[in-house]
Amino acid sequence: MNRPIGIFDSGVGGLTIVKEVIKQLPKESIVYFGDTARLPYGSKSKEDITKFSSQIIKFLLEQNVKLIIVACNTINANCIYELRNMFPHVDIIGVVDAGTKMASNVTINGRIGIIGTQATIISNMYEQLLKKNNSNFKIYSKACPLFVPLVEDGWINHLATHLITEHYLDALLQKNIDTLILGCTHYPMLAEVIQEVVGDVMLINPAIEVAKSTKTVLQNLNLESQKNATYSFYVSAQPSNMKKTVETFLGCSIDKVSTVEIDKYYL
Amino acid sequence: MNRPIGIFDSGVGGLTIVKEVIKQLPKESIVYFGDTARLPYGSKSKEDITKFSSQIIKFLLEQNVKLIIVACNTINANCIYELRNMFPHVDIIGVVDAGTKMASNVTINGRIGIIGTQATIISNMYEQLLKKNNSNFKIYSKACPLFVPLVEDGWINHLATHLITEHYLDALLQKNIDTLILGCTHYPMLAEVIQEVVGDVMLINPAIEVAKSTKTVLQNLNLESQKNATYSFYVSAQPSNMKKTVETFLGCSIDKVSTVEIDKYYL
Repeated sequence: MNRPIGIFDSGVGGLTIVKEVIKQLPKESIVYFGDTARLPYGSKSKEDITKFSSQIIKFLLEQNVKLIIVACNTINANCIYELRNMFPHVDIIGVVDAGTKMASNVTINGRIGIIGTQATIISNMYEQLLKKNNSNFKIYSKACPLFVPLVEDGWINHLATHLITEHYLDALLQKNIDTLILGCTHYPMLAEVIQEVVGDVMLINPAIEVAKSTKTVLQNLNLESQKNATYSFYVSAQPSNMKKTVETFLGCSIDKVSTVEIDKYYL
Repeated sequence: MNRPIGIFDSGVGGLTIVKEVIKQLPKESIVYFGDTARLPYGSKSKEDITKFSSQIIKFLLEQNVKLIIVACNTINANCIYELRNMFPHVDIIGVVDAGTKMASNVTINGRIGIIGTQATIISNMYEQLLKKNNSNFKIYSKACPLFVPLVEDGWINHLATHLITEHYLDALLQKNIDTLILGCTHYPMLAEVIQEVVGDVMLINPAIEVAKSTKTVLQNLNLESQKNATYSFYVSAQPSNMKKTVETFLGCSIDKVSTVEIDKYYL
């Protein structure tokens, strides 16, 4: 069953998920779509996020994908139920569900922190899902709007990044959390400095769990690939150096990044 | 002649221009449009920036504006000539022209620095315009992609902002510039920390010159208003606290911010 897996995000952050899927499922082909023309979704309305996501799913279905991964916390938090209702014939796996499952399993004191974009934090979806797992969990959250631009401008190991991280995480640490969910796909790129700041708090990278869930679903549906994998990368706009950006996230070289005018094709 | 002035930007940064126009031209009504659904323009292609801008101008012309200010360096740098060709019946004033005029007048050693978004810097438009004024000018430029998110997340007076500013401006200072153009409408909000870092280098805030140019054009065309001014604010998407954000930029309270689905109306 050599149909590809569809993975999409508002931009390039979802490539941290692609990287983990390639690692855990090396025979699966992947079609990636990053909505670079309309990012960031973090500051947009629920209605816009739903509309943009459904356009992207229509495009991915035309690429004959067998399963879709929502590699964007903001999209997952705002509208994954709506998207599952709109597209009932394809499995849609969300990064938020994966992260909450993992955090619920590893926390010992039941005090869990979440960091993400403003839209993800305001949506409260992580808290709702975690409380569904255990209503006694104490959840503390914090939006970190500078983390994505810091990653995209390459400030991975700078004192300024350390100071900003300390400032963002201070209130969470005072709540004595023992587990912190990296609730945005860019944030694993800052895992080292975040770990320095939070000490022995356990960091949760949902990408790892997403790849595991994908493997299980494909096994259950008997949809696993046995052939060599191919990878296709699409974006809605090409800023300079897009190919290089993709390669930086993936840690390997790729053929090309193609452009799709997503807002014209799929109204 | 009580028709309003139209001012537009990819987001809220252009409000620093609105503030200066209100200060210098208190009788002029203003219609502001911020393309919050599709920002940032800084990472988009020239084609997209031109298309989005022409949609906004169509909307502003329907509001019966008598003059248009492009309050966005990225738009000005990428397509102001195209926009003037597409809309020959309305005067279009650009923030880049204003900034270059002012810098050319104040520099003594002819070594001018420019900071802005990636798209503005890559476009090279500031350099071209400055060299047209004086081909002996030495121009040095630097993209500062973190400045807009720092302003929008309120990091105006933090050590991290100081460190980031030092890092961005170091190479320019080594070139012995005596004048630095704040080539992005958000940057005047960071003027204090930038001035600390650059010492006695003269900072150019193009908003001041844009308002002056607007006054001159209205006088020449006999289009000045004599009545009380009214202000209308439109955006393409309403993130949380938009009204408060506008009020922070302007330093005064406003009635409301209305939403226009710009991509549906004006294809």
